[in-house]
Amino acid sequence: MTAAADGSGAATFRPTSFALYGLTPEVERAVDLALQEDRLDDVEALIKPLHAADLADLLERQDRDDRRQLATLLATDFDPLVLSYLDETVRDEVMMAIDDGDLAEAVAQLDSDDAVDLIGELDAPEQVRLLKALPARDRAMVEEGLTYPEESAGRLMQREVVVLPTHWTVGQTIDFLRTGADAPDDFYGIFVVDPARRPVGILYLDRLLRANRPVRISDIMQRDFHRLPVAMDQEEVALLFRQYGLVVAPVTDNENRLLGAITIDDVVTVIDAEAEEDLMRLSGVSGVGLYDNFWNVSRNRFTWLAINLLTAVIASSVIGAFQTTIEKIVALAVLMPIVASMGGNAGTQTITIAVRALAMRELTAINAGRFVARETIVGSVNGVAFAVIAGLISWLWFGDLQIAGIMAAAMIVNLIVAGLFGTLIPLTLDRFGIDPAVASSVFITTVTDVIGFLSFLGLAAFILL
Amino acid sequence: MTAAADGSGAATFRPTSFALYGLTPEVERAVDLALQEDRLDDVEALIKPLHAADLADLLERQDRDDRRQLATLLATDFDPLVLSYLDETVRDEVMMAIDDGDLAEAVAQLDSDDAVDLIGELDAPEQVRLLKALPARDRAMVEEGLTYPEESAGRLMQREVVVLPTHWTVGQTIDFLRTGADAPDDFYGIFVVDPARRPVGILYLDRLLRANRPVRISDIMQRDFHRLPVAMDQEEVALLFRQYGLVVAPVTDNENRLLGAITIDDVVTVIDAEAEEDLMRLSGVSGVGLYDNFWNVSRNRFTWLAINLLTAVIASSVIGAFQTTIEKIVALAVLMPIVASMGGNAGTQTITIAVRALAMRELTAINAGRFVARETIVGSVNGVAFAVIAGLISWLWFGDLQIAGIMAAAMIVNLIVAGLFGTLIPLTLDRFGIDPAVASSVFITTVTDVIGFLSFLGLAAFILL
Repeated sequence: MTAAADGSGAATFRPTSFALYGLTPEVERAVDLALQEDRLDDVEALIKPLHAADLADLLERQDRDDRRQLATLLATDFDPLVLSYLDETVRDEVMMAIDDGDLAEAVAQLDSDDAVDLIGELDAPEQVRLLKALPARDRAMVEEGLTYPEESAGRLMQREVVVLPTHWTVGQTIDFLRTGADAPDDFYGIFVVDPARRPVGILYLDRLLRANRPVRISDIMQRDFHRLPVAMDQEEVALLFRQYGLVVAPVTDNENRLLGAITIDDVVTVIDAEAEEDLMRLSGVSGVGLYDNFWNVSRNRFTWLAINLLTAVIASSVIGAFQTTIEKIVALAVLMPIVASMGGNAGTQTITIAVRALAMRELTAINAGRFVARETIVGSVNGVAFAVIAGLISWLWFGDLQIAGIMAAAMIVNLIVAGLFGTLIPLTLDRFGIDPAVASSVFITTVTDVIGFLSFLGLAAFILL
Repeated sequence: MTAAADGSGAATFRPTSFALYGLTPEVERAVDLALQEDRLDDVEALIKPLHAADLADLLERQDRDDRRQLATLLATDFDPLVLSYLDETVRDEVMMAIDDGDLAEAVAQLDSDDAVDLIGELDAPEQVRLLKALPARDRAMVEEGLTYPEESAGRLMQREVVVLPTHWTVGQTIDFLRTGADAPDDFYGIFVVDPARRPVGILYLDRLLRANRPVRISDIMQRDFHRLPVAMDQEEVALLFRQYGLVVAPVTDNENRLLGAITIDDVVTVIDAEAEEDLMRLSGVSGVGLYDNFWNVSRNRFTWLAINLLTAVIASSVIGAFQTTIEKIVALAVLMPIVASMGGNAGTQTITIAVRALAMRELTAINAGRFVARETIVGSVNGVAFAVIAGLISWLWFGDLQIAGIMAAAMIVNLIVAGLFGTLIPLTLDRFGIDPAVASSVFITTVTDVIGFLSFLGLAAFILL
């Protein structure tokens, strides 16, 4: 029997993107059309069955005017979850389209972590306005949340937790939960605390369900768990969750008292954000999103390009020093970008590995030396390989053995430099507390451009003139 | 009262990396020293309290010999979880150091998804050997898992699930769970199925705990949930979990029958892997890890560098066409890399945004046009800005207004081209089913190099000669 015949379907299923999502391209086009033709009732009927995340996507993909119109349609009976799924730029626009009262009502329905996240990203005057509109209890909770540093465990945590004393039994616990007392919407674990509210164990729900009523919860709770200090950076939180496969962990204050909980679904958001940040920083595009307007994006890109212009000018000044050499042998001008480009690419390869490994804490003081050595050897091996290939190309092109030899030598030098500095630059930046994702690629291309031009043109000047 | 004084500690806590991990740098150094001095009892005492994930890190960071020695120490009473945390290269080495019997015993203890994952990555002869050593029931389960395509939901899913018929009550369910019948180690939800084993609802444990014994589970289960076809790609699975904040979802066959479950902790691994893959592919370093030896790494990097050499030669041939121009005005050779480099950087910025947005399904047919337009406008805005700056620099450097004007014009052309092609290249690749992360950066640098040299030198030849 084959896999397909027994119904497992491995051989026949073709994933059609989005088919499983509520927001299919057909629905999206139908909404677009209905908006254009001002059939607002149809729009409402189309978007009613959508999940908050899909509504958020739909809002994001509209242009400004349609977005405002959609937001106004959604405003009555507004699902606050839509806001937490929205990209920051779009969220600001949508929040402007909804009046303060409706907005406050919506925010009050959110879990505390989502509410803090949302209000934390507003400008100060808007923050004050929305906080004022919130019910007193929610306001206090959000205000407390805002006292923690951005991107900390305190910002990420949910304040609504189920807490029990150690001496309770399984039966008591289940009876208590059945009263429906003040529990959060969803929870995966219960925190067992001592009289000072310090967590001493986590009781997972499957353990609770498997035990008999007279069993003490102190006998079935997990005593070995990780506490997250409230000011811990969210990146560190994500690393801990990944490292130990955590599902839920308590957040504690300086006195080790329970303040709230972080669950793995909060961490998924952090993991995504951190991965995106590293990727974006390596290319100098962090800080603006897909939905920012061209003016913000232009300004944001400008800084990175300006830094790049500076490094390009530095590299060019090396060429400038060899003008007389180039004047005599113009083939050098044709070939020199090859050396620089190969060095830049090899350096970027090494830096990418290093930045990711540093972010994942896989590269540490213990194995850094071995990593530097390996990358330098890799640079030497490929340096020799490309010395042969690029030398051959140069020889065929210009029929000059000396130029071919110079090309070969410069290639070896530059690829070794790429391996060596491609490791040393991010390791050094990390050592000094600078995010290696931000600055590494500027440094490495400067180094490989300068060394590339210098070794190639310098050797040429020395040998040929 | 300040945040610090009331014990929330926001102001005083300083995250010290690793301090919360079991494998502190001190422990690591102590293990290293004990290994060097052959104090194996001390090594054992040091590593005994470590979590499997920490043991895996420790193994990864050793050199080959120490690693083999450590693996042999761990072999008796081996914790199989260590294997699932290990990097692939290191895992092969460690598995070689442990004999088949011990290994099979360890693998049999793993959850089915981890076992399939592990055995699926072995070479065919080793696979057969290890499968033979497994108990019959585990072997059948693993062999079935291996029939699903790599990186599919079938590979990712756990086969051990708790399943109930719709007509049961809360009381019956809890009594059943208390018998301890064949439940997986940890579970967050129970699948409610019809007589044909098709899932009709998910019962979350917190809902079960909050309901009274006579309540029917069909009244408290969640009827609205996502089914994952067994051959669905893991990237798609991760997108669904993120989009809808899922915690657990059933995996089904062609007939919609329940085969297993995927939980959010499996998805975290996928999210990490996919983010890493995109990052690595953009720089041409995917396929080898931090712990591969220099030879594998060199070969892996070679391909990418060879492609880059080809594109560099193409760009250089453009310069070659203008040799006479350069011979007459050598300043052009000095300035031309600036134009190419600025275009390359601007193009990479755009491509990074596009690749990430395509991977996250944020860029679709609906908003692609707007994105292309925005990036082209951004290219124009920064093109004009850098035309002024780079023109000024050229004028100050060479005191030639014509060269400055040519530089300015070439800069505008190349930055617009970078924006336009930086969006069109990844969108086109994606349209044709080619991963834009793999090929985009080669294409864009070729385009911006060629256009950069061509516009700058071409204009110069036209105007100055």
